[in-house]
Parts: sequence; C-alpha cells; structure tokens
Amino acid sequence: MDSDAFAKLPPPPYYAVVFSSVRTAADEAGYGEAAARMVELARGQPGFLGVESVRGADGFGITVSNWDSEDAIRAWRRHAEHAATRERGRANWYRHFELRIARVERAYGWGAGDGPGRTDAPA
Amino acid sequence: MDSDAFAKLPPPPYYAVVFSSVRTAADEAGYGEAAARMVELARGQPGFLGVESVRGADGFGITVSNWDSEDAIRAWRRHAEHAATRERGRANWYRHFELRIARVERAYGWGAGDGPGRTDAPA
Repeated sequence: MDSDAFAKLPPPPYYAVVFSSVRTAADEAGYGEAAARMVELARGQPGFLGVESVRGADGFGITVSNWDSEDAIRAWRRHAEHAATRERGRANWYRHFELRIARVERAYGWGAGDGPGRTDAPA
Repeated sequence: MDSDAFAKLPPPPYYAVVFSSVRTAADEAGYGEAAARMVELARGQPGFLGVESVRGADGFGITVSNWDSEDAIRAWRRHAEHAATRERGRANWYRHFELRIARVERAYGWGAGDGPGRTDAPA
C-alpha cells in the first residue's frame, strides 16, 4: 500500500484542503460508498492534484486533497453532486468536522531507499 | 474523544506542517513513546498552536501540526531532541514520508449541534 497511499504531487506552490472529522457510528456502508465516489469524482475535476486520507479505529480521520488553485477548490465546492453529498454528510455521517484551506509553500520527502540525505533539503 | 482529537486553532493565517508517513512494522513501543514525547515537547515550543494526528491499521498516517509562523517551524526543526528523534525515525520507524509546509488561509468547521448553516460560510 505504500506507494498508493501517497499523493503524487508537483512541486509547490499548490493548495491543500485539510479536512479533519469525527464520524458518527451510522451508515458505514453508505458512507464508504459515498467517500469512494467523491474521490472518483474529484479525480475528474480540473485542477485536482491528488488526495491522501486516513481514519483511525476511534472514528477520527484526516483527508488532505490537493489542487492547483483556489479557483479549482471553489469549483469543486460548487459541484452539484459534491454539494448534495456534503448535505448527507452533515445529516448522517459526521459528528464534527474542521476544514482548512492552505497554500503549500515547500515540500520534501524521504523513502527507506534514499539514505539519510534527502530530508536535509529545505529547512 | 471528539473534542480532544481536534486542535483548537486561532483564526487564520497560520502555518501547517502536513506529515504523511508509512510506518515499518518495527518497534511499536519505542515509536509510541517517542511520538508522545514529541507532542509533549512541541506543545512547549514558542509558536506551537496545536496538532491533529491519525494512523490507520495499514500503517499509513497523517499528522498536521500548526504554528504561528515559519520561524516557529524552523526553530522546532532545529530543536536538538527533535532532530535526534527524526534520525531514529528514518532508521527504524518510517518506510516513507512526505512533508508539506503550508500557509492556512481560511478555515471553518461544523458540529452536529450547529445545524446546517455553519458550513456555508466562506466559499
């Protein structure tokens, strides 16, 4: 799963939407289906760059979607099927969420094959 | 756990460090102890605002720490105990990680008690 879980992103700058949430215990099947559909739909939107997502056993999760501009984020927000799914989310699936929109300025990474050097890039 | 998992953050702007990683299977006890210690240590640093973190059963995790300035992030990066723990992370605990530093521009949230209105704030 290693390589699948990470978004393949271009060099910054780009924009990230950090979505932190706590699920209700309700409707796991409907939630899972809708979440997969939203990722599929987002991948087809102009300006979508990639997404990373994780949820713990306690119901708390973080999803970070990445976009090439704030306009792309606004257009996704206005997408009709996405808006309808957000309504279902508030009614059924989420107890609480927080959403932050951020401009990514710098990025770097490291893999076990890289040796110690690569993280010492931008401070 | 609801209220504990979310960072209590001031209004933007502030800076977020998005750390995505895949764990090795090694040294769960040592990792857990070091991760808790790093959160404790970060909380005492100037400019630290809050952190949210989750790891899934498959070993992929996202941690978002929030800071009041890029200078605060740089100072934390230079902290000696943090630097030593990062070395242990590369040697033992992580298979791959990606780190992105971003300026948070807008933020909003919603809780089940809020009704539908609060998410319709900034577009």
